[in-house]
Amino acid sequence: MVEQLKKEVFEANLELIRRGVVVYTWGNVSGIDRNNGVMVIKPSGIDYAKMRPEDMVIVSLETGETIEGKWKPSSDTKTHLEIYKAFPQIKGIAHTHSVNAVAFAQAGLDIPALGTTHADYFYGSIPCTRELTQKEVEDSYEENTGKVIVECILKRKIDPQIIPGIIVKNHGPFSWGKDPADSVYHAVVMDIVAEMNLKTLMLNPCASMKSYILDKHYMRKHGANEYYGQG
Amino acid sequence: MVEQLKKEVFEANLELIRRGVVVYTWGNVSGIDRNNGVMVIKPSGIDYAKMRPEDMVIVSLETGETIEGKWKPSSDTKTHLEIYKAFPQIKGIAHTHSVNAVAFAQAGLDIPALGTTHADYFYGSIPCTRELTQKEVEDSYEENTGKVIVECILKRKIDPQIIPGIIVKNHGPFSWGKDPADSVYHAVVMDIVAEMNLKTLMLNPCASMKSYILDKHYMRKHGANEYYGQG
Amino acid sequence: MVEQLKKEVFEANLELIRRGVVVYTWGNVSGIDRNNGVMVIKPSGIDYAKMRPEDMVIVSLETGETIEGKWKPSSDTKTHLEIYKAFPQIKGIAHTHSVNAVAFAQAGLDIPALGTTHADYFYGSIPCTRELTQKEVEDSYEENTGKVIVECILKRKIDPQIIPGIIVKNHGPFSWGKDPADSVYHAVVMDIVAEMNLKTLMLNPCASMKSYILDKHYMRKHGANEYYGQG
Amino acid sequence: MVEQLKKEVFEANLELIRRGVVVYTWGNVSGIDRNNGVMVIKPSGIDYAKMRPEDMVIVSLETGETIEGKWKPSSDTKTHLEIYKAFPQIKGIAHTHSVNAVAFAQAGLDIPALGTTHADYFYGSIPCTRELTQKEVEDSYEENTGKVIVECILKRKIDPQIIPGIIVKNHGPFSWGKDPADSVYHAVVMDIVAEMNLKTLMLNPCASMKSYILDKHYMRKHGANEYYGQG
Repeated sequence: MVEQLKKEVFEANLELIRRGVVVYTWGNVSGIDRNNGVMVIKPSGIDYAKMRPEDMVIVSLETGETIEGKWKPSSDTKTHLEIYKAFPQIKGIAHTHSVNAVAFAQAGLDIPALGTTHADYFYGSIPCTRELTQKEVEDSYEENTGKVIVECILKRKIDPQIIPGIIVKNHGPFSWGKDPADSVYHAVVMDIVAEMNLKTLMLNPCASMKSYILDKHYMRKHGANEYYGQG
Repeated sequence: MVEQLKKEVFEANLELIRRGVVVYTWGNVSGIDRNNGVMVIKPSGIDYAKMRPEDMVIVSLETGETIEGKWKPSSDTKTHLEIYKAFPQIKGIAHTHSVNAVAFAQAGLDIPALGTTHADYFYGSIPCTRELTQKEVEDSYEENTGKVIVECILKRKIDPQIIPGIIVKNHGPFSWGKDPADSVYHAVVMDIVAEMNLKTLMLNPCASMKSYILDKHYMRKHGANEYYGQG
Repeated sequence: MVEQLKKEVFEANLELIRRGVVVYTWGNVSGIDRNNGVMVIKPSGIDYAKMRPEDMVIVSLETGETIEGKWKPSSDTKTHLEIYKAFPQIKGIAHTHSVNAVAFAQAGLDIPALGTTHADYFYGSIPCTRELTQKEVEDSYEENTGKVIVECILKRKIDPQIIPGIIVKNHGPFSWGKDPADSVYHAVVMDIVAEMNLKTLMLNPCASMKSYILDKHYMRKHGANEYYGQG
Repeated sequence: MVEQLKKEVFEANLELIRRGVVVYTWGNVSGIDRNNGVMVIKPSGIDYAKMRPEDMVIVSLETGETIEGKWKPSSDTKTHLEIYKAFPQIKGIAHTHSVNAVAFAQAGLDIPALGTTHADYFYGSIPCTRELTQKEVEDSYEENTGKVIVECILKRKIDPQIIPGIIVKNHGPFSWGKDPADSVYHAVVMDIVAEMNLKTLMLNPCASMKSYILDKHYMRKHGANEYYGQG
């Protein structure tokens, strides 16, 4: 079942390590097959070096229960499910503890749009969610992490397709995309952009970018008249 | 004698280099066999590239004297012994001069618990010890370094199993765990967490994390009802 | 046509990746054959790992149109053309999003000449251009980016041969040289110098260098009486 | 002539690259044979990848003239000679533009002794020289750089054997030791210590270390009663 998706999710998880945004087991990628109503995700706490495509776990999008797989799914499974349920356009999700994005998450600050590297992939600030309440943490932590992500996106009227990532306060980044590989790509970009912005703010705490530059860069890559790449 | 432990200590020392937390000979790992009353530790100032398991030194836990081995044990041997004597749960100890943890040690500041990466492994701030007195330094420096570590843990009523590391003022980190490999794992985590927190504090000097998030993350990985990993 | 130049441009693009100043497809190098009135440039958005010399695109220096090549040229093609047209001495141009140079670009600050590493290659501050106006961005963004670069150089009366690079506000660095490889060399130097200067300014916001040291270092490497290297 | 020393100098130069303290040709190492009155040094501006032991240049300690070698010696040759002439104990010298040490040099600040990593190798602050005067720069720059280094050491009554390095204002580090390899070792330590101290000062601008800790650490490795290593 969904063998191709298991391969994609497996490969995307390895790419997290290769790109240096994950050490040890601190990250996970999932993918979704909406027709079959299932999500494929990395098993929890498994060493990347020994992982194989067949170790990926298949989970029901509806119930969150494991449908196939010898391992327990990632402990962040319910967070992924909440995001998939809220936004049908999302096809892959990545979660990391990459250092620079985490620094903004721990500081409780959005990653502001200060340059064209950011604007090429994120059409505006990458939002930082509010803190979870004690009740939210104690009741159903991972599910509520997902709900707080969704709440933040809806409240700010963000289209998650044009800002394909978020940072959870005191935790770290989640990113997504049109498939698992794309979500990893956005995880890597987010960390580089966070490093650029951290250094920028040290040089100039008032740094900013005009919105028309943001518009231009995002649109030349993603708008109806995009002209970056081989089209 | 204790051949398996020598292999483990040897491997854990090499892992320090592979993970980038030690350059040259600036680190050491030990392990303990409490039944036989011995500690196994890296020899002093030996090049990691030429080291073999049989170069590890066996030291009496009681007297601190070398029982077996052609080399002198690490100059930090007495520090390790003090920690093992005070806390019977500890089975492996690592010491490094990793840059980010050292920065907090030199600054004389605890590494505060600002995010879930920290909370997954350290249940609270990683304490920075007080400065040794001149007498403590001149009399028996390495032994007193161990005593000051133990004093700090006891005074702050810390359970060393849930905060498996400390930084010694003006010196650097010591970490421990359920075996030598585990102590190295905590050395690596501590340096990454220190880098995250340094960057966080540059973005927001008032950054903090609610204690209920710390509780949740630590407990989902280590509490009686832990559910991270494959159980 | 211009097979040798295609090879040089191809090699220079790969060097961007090897030197760590480009990730993914975030950079491009071009070279020029003024006798034939053509520029050779990297194709847009192509994976470096699969790129071959024959994938390089040949563009008319006059019209900007593609003369030969199966791919669309880099989206920054018109920026390169503007620079080549304004400064006949320039024979190769590199563009990157290297983190440290971008930090200065996003901060809207020149990279100041604070030390001899800088002075060995750049005879004065590396200028940061003004912001493009909304009209400039919307009308012909890449062409106007080139025009703003040229304007900045002319307005400040800079000889681009002795300050072989610039940063575009909110965007990032462009650098150039006597051939494509030389432009990449300057891209790498610029990022290292930017990192040095960022760290310097954190230690001492008033850091500066006497102009006679700048003179000496630049001249011993590039002046009429240069004596660095094997002459 | 001095074939063994040429090999040592060659190897020490390569080590600069392997340890990441030199990029391109931005560094050089020399060694001395005082019996024969000669210094062996890296040729100027030669690619490290193509360099061979026989490319090393032999220079007269007395006159500074090339005695043997097909290449021009490093442009910093006269700086090395001044240091060797002033301090007979020095047997090898390294010069780099390593980023963190350069940051202190550009900031015009000593690298303060804030921790035991520093204290293990440098018995006190690593001094930053005064700025050269315009006359000194214009008359005989490299020779005067050496003279300013010597002046700084003498004026501050420093024993160069116990503080085996210095930073030249607006330029970068020079380090030395008991042979060429030892000078490179000190160049690497200096950069790591500079990174630690930069980060420490960002966390706590008032950070300091008691002198008795400095004494202890330096002496346990280098004093008459040293006990670090295998003795």
